[in-house]
Amino acid sequence: MVSFSPPVRDLRFVLEELLEHRSLSLPVFEEASPELVEAVLEEAGKLAGEVWAPLNVSGDRQGCTRRDDGGVTLPDGFAEAYRAYAEGGWNGIGVAEAQGGQGLPEVVASSVQEMLHGANMALGLCPMLTAGAIEALAHHGSEAQKAIYLPRLVEGFWTGTMNLTEPQAGSDLSKVRTRAVPSDDVPGEYRLFGQKIFITWGEHEASENIVHLVLARTPNAPEGNKGISLFLVPKFLVDEEGSLGRRNDVICAAIEHKLGIHGSPTCTLSFGENDGAIGYLVGDEGRGLNHMFTMMNEARHKVGVQGIGVAERACQHAFAYALERVQGKAHGRESSISEHLDVRRMLLSMRARTDALRALALTCAAELDVARHAADEAERRAAQARVDVLIPVVKAFSTDQAVEIASLGVQVHGGMGYIEETGAAQLLRDARIAPIYEGTNGIQALDLAGRKLQRDGGAALARLIDDVEATAQALAASPELAHLSPGLAAGVADLRAAFAAVLEQGADPAQGADAIQAYATPFLSLVGHVLCAWQMGRAAFKAQAAIKAGSQEPFYAAKLASADYAIRHWLPVGRAQRAVIEAGMESLAAFDARSQ
Amino acid sequence: MVSFSPPVRDLRFVLEELLEHRSLSLPVFEEASPELVEAVLEEAGKLAGEVWAPLNVSGDRQGCTRRDDGGVTLPDGFAEAYRAYAEGGWNGIGVAEAQGGQGLPEVVASSVQEMLHGANMALGLCPMLTAGAIEALAHHGSEAQKAIYLPRLVEGFWTGTMNLTEPQAGSDLSKVRTRAVPSDDVPGEYRLFGQKIFITWGEHEASENIVHLVLARTPNAPEGNKGISLFLVPKFLVDEEGSLGRRNDVICAAIEHKLGIHGSPTCTLSFGENDGAIGYLVGDEGRGLNHMFTMMNEARHKVGVQGIGVAERACQHAFAYALERVQGKAHGRESSISEHLDVRRMLLSMRARTDALRALALTCAAELDVARHAADEAERRAAQARVDVLIPVVKAFSTDQAVEIASLGVQVHGGMGYIEETGAAQLLRDARIAPIYEGTNGIQALDLAGRKLQRDGGAALARLIDDVEATAQALAASPELAHLSPGLAAGVADLRAAFAAVLEQGADPAQGADAIQAYATPFLSLVGHVLCAWQMGRAAFKAQAAIKAGSQEPFYAAKLASADYAIRHWLPVGRAQRAVIEAGMESLAAFDARSQ
Repeated sequence: MVSFSPPVRDLRFVLEELLEHRSLSLPVFEEASPELVEAVLEEAGKLAGEVWAPLNVSGDRQGCTRRDDGGVTLPDGFAEAYRAYAEGGWNGIGVAEAQGGQGLPEVVASSVQEMLHGANMALGLCPMLTAGAIEALAHHGSEAQKAIYLPRLVEGFWTGTMNLTEPQAGSDLSKVRTRAVPSDDVPGEYRLFGQKIFITWGEHEASENIVHLVLARTPNAPEGNKGISLFLVPKFLVDEEGSLGRRNDVICAAIEHKLGIHGSPTCTLSFGENDGAIGYLVGDEGRGLNHMFTMMNEARHKVGVQGIGVAERACQHAFAYALERVQGKAHGRESSISEHLDVRRMLLSMRARTDALRALALTCAAELDVARHAADEAERRAAQARVDVLIPVVKAFSTDQAVEIASLGVQVHGGMGYIEETGAAQLLRDARIAPIYEGTNGIQALDLAGRKLQRDGGAALARLIDDVEATAQALAASPELAHLSPGLAAGVADLRAAFAAVLEQGADPAQGADAIQAYATPFLSLVGHVLCAWQMGRAAFKAQAAIKAGSQEPFYAAKLASADYAIRHWLPVGRAQRAVIEAGMESLAAFDARSQ
Repeated sequence: MVSFSPPVRDLRFVLEELLEHRSLSLPVFEEASPELVEAVLEEAGKLAGEVWAPLNVSGDRQGCTRRDDGGVTLPDGFAEAYRAYAEGGWNGIGVAEAQGGQGLPEVVASSVQEMLHGANMALGLCPMLTAGAIEALAHHGSEAQKAIYLPRLVEGFWTGTMNLTEPQAGSDLSKVRTRAVPSDDVPGEYRLFGQKIFITWGEHEASENIVHLVLARTPNAPEGNKGISLFLVPKFLVDEEGSLGRRNDVICAAIEHKLGIHGSPTCTLSFGENDGAIGYLVGDEGRGLNHMFTMMNEARHKVGVQGIGVAERACQHAFAYALERVQGKAHGRESSISEHLDVRRMLLSMRARTDALRALALTCAAELDVARHAADEAERRAAQARVDVLIPVVKAFSTDQAVEIASLGVQVHGGMGYIEETGAAQLLRDARIAPIYEGTNGIQALDLAGRKLQRDGGAALARLIDDVEATAQALAASPELAHLSPGLAAGVADLRAAFAAVLEQGADPAQGADAIQAYATPFLSLVGHVLCAWQMGRAAFKAQAAIKAGSQEPFYAAKLASADYAIRHWLPVGRAQRAVIEAGMESLAAFDARSQ
């Protein structure tokens, strides 16, 4: 079994060289020195590599079991590994100090998350969901709720869940039916009745308590989105001092048998099978969906990062196998399969894409830091506008690519890749959920091509494209890197043309508001390819400079090869999406799915 | 659970309208009327839909078990379903009458295979392997071997296996170490010693006997390929009348735990743990690999067809779910998700690709019929040259696309797609083996861009491209279909340019013989896209003609939408491979996999 090496070297490259520690220059982070960040990455890498990673395969094999008492047994070692994480203080690293966290930049928190997901995606989901609960409570909870729940969630001794989906309400949450009835006796208290499905880490015993955030409908609330409110439903009731009381009326009715992430219990939760699950309104009545969406953007970034973590691990698996497996000849002598150019093509494709996705996701994280903490409001707003455009791309593009990367990893292993024992297949199975949850990738594409673009006429994206173009021009002026310029420049041209087409079609009332859906996914793919190629163009400058300065580290030569591959071999496939968009939507509109 | 509807309608469209029953016009098939073919498809569809398909999910869940006695227990119902197939006479439909088969055209046999694989890929593997054994014995077996083994294999009461792989010998079979020692006492008899892995249907009790074809090395044989011979090793020894005798010294030492095709036992077979497994030389000593490759081409076609079968089933699953699942609004009212254009894009993408792959695979099958049976030798040769080019494309492109189609099928299902119970995930897991076995898709690409192209300077492919161009020109001249012409013509231009680049680089001694590997996979992808788009261009003519002639069948309108999608939305992605090829191989050559 291949061990997992936390990608600290490349994370540091992105943070230090590519982003030039942009986040650390913000006044709020003045105590976070580059040395501190380096130490954090090293320590998190140890936790990921030494504690979490060894449980990845065993957790997949063993899976989770629902016991007759309604409890869920996690795979062996998961509870301990989670506690090591909480006790190490890792859960609060990205949380503001005002909320009891360590207030490190998002770029650092994202880097740590990537390593943890690469080590063990199923386990990584637990804190990912808790982070969502922290976010929701920090923004919308009452002072009393914050005082009681936030510290324990931030420490990680309590975990959080998001209860959105019901059988009839998936992508369309307006259909939520779970009811929340005000208690007669206790003001502010509700009783919840209903069933939620697909609740990640919905029941387990790795934490002392579980804080369920639940979308439900109050009595006489209007139909649709505006009737939905957000409620906090603790697994164990909590008194005013934060001490745990009796078990609430919420139980795990079933767990799902899934394609992957077997170590993550995906639960059906029943609320109120007896006298009602006691819950508390979070924020304003009728604004549950809005409150949920506050944190959704950041959760989507985290899912993108998760995809990158799994992609990184798939790379490492494939490289290790290809370097060790001797088969056939290259250059006239027996060789490892990594010498065969078709295998090397797969390896470089995996590596170049993973590198590029990481750089883009961390660029987005740095913008998040600026959007939250820059002193200047205009700077904050500009960063936020950029974040808004980047997040659906990071979520959807990283996760779609992660599936392809993991699938390539299986292919590199040949027949061994299909045997579960090898571990490559698990990564494909695990990765496959990421394009689906936290808003399907189709919904991300619609968010980008619809809401995010139409609202400012695409100004924020236009500025991003200007930056890509500047990089293409700078490449043209570089004696060593000029060969990378034409591809990137062509990508800019294609993106500009497709962008204009999407804006035009989105604005055309004759097409109807739904029409943008026909172009959204190809458009997001094109944006993702161009932005990733941009990051690799920027990375090429840094690598070239290091080599010029005398660095002998093979890392930089590999980075140049990755950049070349990303721009000249990978980007063309994305550029093809311009033609797809320009082909129009007639065949889609004409196609009747019932004719099958 | 979604049932499986055998795609008889589209198979008939391809055979009758697209191929105009080309195979039936061959004199050898004079007894096979269109009505007979139609009846065969209908009956095979019943077996597939009613007997095999209902076992697909249960077979996946239950899997195969190796018992302590070395036997393998199949999933419930598999042995009976296999026997229903054999007793129905299905195993011999494509086998020549001289060998005891029914001598139906390959296009018909392929159509039947596609339905059976769509119904139950794991079960379909059993006859697929038997067909390989029949092929090998028919070409290379002695008269005595043919007399004893062929009839029972053709009837399907005995099944066959291919024993190639050993732990150190996968894609590189020159490394085979299994030994075959001539018996002292019985002339022509050998004793085999060694271990083979990944033996599909290597042990089971659905048939009376299993005929293992085994690559092994004779004493004092030279190193490498030329020391390898092919042996027939029956599970139960057979006397001269064909009666079964004692158990041979070959046992199932283990079965693999795989990502998918759980209903197909993948065995490790140990030969000669006691006094040696008794085997018989097939064909000439030292020519085992050649004999194996005789049948490899056709086996590769079958794997491509298998991919199409799974893709078809994935389509049906996704369509059924999308039509039934109500979520969100389209055109201002509540609607099934099939009304959302992004979902419809996925559905049409799945359908268009599956249709196109089927048309291409059956076109190849028709060429196989002509290559075998045309009266005129020049016609046979021309057809064989076309088959040689098409087979690696059918194998690799169909199976790569099948994985993508099955993955899209998961995506259409949203969260439900990730739950095993839904069945969509199984199709992805099952499909994932097809790009790996029977020669990885990388090896197919090398076969195409290397051997198949370089040996005749690409003459056969050039003629295929001429045919595509003729279709593009014909489209340009059609008032209704002219909009499809520019895309196909552009595909032709891109393919011609890439083709020239690959031929040039392959002929350049400075690049080395291995260099072609760098371009092979992108080239195969481009060829596959263009040839599939060509088939859909041809299909558009037929559909348009039927509509003009007054047909109200929704099938034809859907076919036009598929053709539009294939040429204008799908082909551009393939065309991008031209740029990839023209980008050259520098980044691959420069990349050191050890730098990771």
